[in-house]
Amino acid sequence: MGNVIPFEKEKSAPDGSAEENKAATALARLTELVADDLLKVNQTIIQKMDSPVELIPQLAGHLIASGGKRLRPMLTLAATRLCGYEGNRHIQLAACVEFIHSATLLHDDVVDESDLRRGVDTANAVWGNKPSVLVGDFLFSRSFELMTADGSLDILRILSKASSVIAEGEVLQLMTANDTETTEDSYMDVIAAKTAALFAAACEIGAVIADRPQAEADALESYGKNLGIVFQLIDDVLDYSAEQGTLGKSVGDDFREGKITLPIVLAFRRGDTTERQFWRRTMEDLEQTDTDLEHAMTLLEKHNALADTVDRARHYGKIARDALAIFPKSPLKQALADIVDFCIERAY
Amino acid sequence: MGNVIPFEKEKSAPDGSAEENKAATALARLTELVADDLLKVNQTIIQKMDSPVELIPQLAGHLIASGGKRLRPMLTLAATRLCGYEGNRHIQLAACVEFIHSATLLHDDVVDESDLRRGVDTANAVWGNKPSVLVGDFLFSRSFELMTADGSLDILRILSKASSVIAEGEVLQLMTANDTETTEDSYMDVIAAKTAALFAAACEIGAVIADRPQAEADALESYGKNLGIVFQLIDDVLDYSAEQGTLGKSVGDDFREGKITLPIVLAFRRGDTTERQFWRRTMEDLEQTDTDLEHAMTLLEKHNALADTVDRARHYGKIARDALAIFPKSPLKQALADIVDFCIERAY
Repeated sequence: MGNVIPFEKEKSAPDGSAEENKAATALARLTELVADDLLKVNQTIIQKMDSPVELIPQLAGHLIASGGKRLRPMLTLAATRLCGYEGNRHIQLAACVEFIHSATLLHDDVVDESDLRRGVDTANAVWGNKPSVLVGDFLFSRSFELMTADGSLDILRILSKASSVIAEGEVLQLMTANDTETTEDSYMDVIAAKTAALFAAACEIGAVIADRPQAEADALESYGKNLGIVFQLIDDVLDYSAEQGTLGKSVGDDFREGKITLPIVLAFRRGDTTERQFWRRTMEDLEQTDTDLEHAMTLLEKHNALADTVDRARHYGKIARDALAIFPKSPLKQALADIVDFCIERAY
Repeated sequence: MGNVIPFEKEKSAPDGSAEENKAATALARLTELVADDLLKVNQTIIQKMDSPVELIPQLAGHLIASGGKRLRPMLTLAATRLCGYEGNRHIQLAACVEFIHSATLLHDDVVDESDLRRGVDTANAVWGNKPSVLVGDFLFSRSFELMTADGSLDILRILSKASSVIAEGEVLQLMTANDTETTEDSYMDVIAAKTAALFAAACEIGAVIADRPQAEADALESYGKNLGIVFQLIDDVLDYSAEQGTLGKSVGDDFREGKITLPIVLAFRRGDTTERQFWRRTMEDLEQTDTDLEHAMTLLEKHNALADTVDRARHYGKIARDALAIFPKSPLKQALADIVDFCIERAY
């Protein structure tokens, strides 16, 4: 058990600057620890998304090459190695995870009518909605072909269940879209399904690949689920604070679409009658003027909605870190714990 | 082996009127032979498309209840019983086949921007494109969950491969859409993928469920593939001859969309320069006037394009029937052979 890749130094009791550094370098460190495997995953992705129908590798390649962090497949790689696995099955299965993620992104962009993702034109902006729907279907089918070739029914069960849950979460979000009365609980249900389910599955399968006891699968599932929640909550915050170009999203995209996220849920509930009218007009009726985004940001600030969303994220981050406790100390375990901080520190 | 449901009389040497009758009643007869199983499939479909997210069963129910013939799941049921299977696994797997079919229909209607299917408003016409994309994803994921619960990797392999091929076929069709230069061969490649692959898989899994030799799986795959080609070619013909209401499609839908089908491929190739200009203007540039559909029908008639498409369909129908030869004589075998005629006779 544990990982054999040497790790230069442990940061066990970091001071302030080391703390900052830890968050900033957590992703780089995780990437380094799984670098050899990740290279193989990228090769597998390119090889398996190929098709005699040229538009398929073109469009899928556009998305997959457009600067994603490969966070989900990296989690599969890291979780599998954390469980002491030394074979190669995790390469293909990490590619499956990325295919499922890519398929949902393609369909999301159709559903959201998005033109930009990570600062790059979306596939539907370049080729139109139709190929995006169909290439998404192809990637999704292909991922089940690859899982079947791997041959583990447990993994098929975990990832097919996750896929259903993701679709349910997306429909639920659509049904509650533009509803300013959305409660925090029901918003959490949406993101547990649409985002956290795949993070959870990506991690859980690590223990299954390594043939480890259920307790380790459960621990990794819990880690992944809570990390996914952190990731989504911080993504929601970033929509009101990130610069386009660093994140590849425009500030206020969610606002312009009337997408209800936790910062809005909090600001709406904490606001007075006039403020709630403002949120209803802008988010429900989508009647927005040029100064509305600025006013929205003022209200979010007034009610501490962004900072409190980060605070909520910290809560789930703690659960994620504690879930890893059963694994012996190792550089990989440390990197997985630190990635939680990385997700949270993205907000600053 | 064989089916135990009693069958009133064999039509071995039918006269003219019996021939007609045979085609007209083939579907009813197949339906009758698998009636008990089909009832259970319908119950399974309703049960397994359920979700706490209400829009999912609503939208899926709208599609699945809207008058489909359940041809594909019936093929699975019939093929499995033809192979002598007496268990119940085929019920759930036939439901999987219908889920995959339903998912592709939902996505097709988004891609085609169709408002009507079988004379009923399409889901995307009622609820918009977004839920159709996502509920399609749900049905697709759910079908893989059900296959995984069944536990046969061979069946997972067959159906995940079919799903990839369908998506490839749909993208290929999109790429060659509105291209009047499309050859008959490349059109056949499209329909082999987008339509025949699921018919083939639906039949092939019958032999796998019944644990029969590869030769029977191959025979059923060949039967299904060729039947699927017949089905699609006749569907193409019907678009230029059916009455809306009996088929639930408007005459000329394909024409108005500029969808290149075999009748058009034939008429274009057989036409003179003026005629080819007509097809380019109407199908490629989509510049259509009120009288163009009528003129198109005249050209199809002039070049015998509809009748020759039916003739091509007969060719594949013969292959389908011969593929069944290795199975001993039984009412089910007869019904499967007759369903080929049913598909062809739909054209009249």
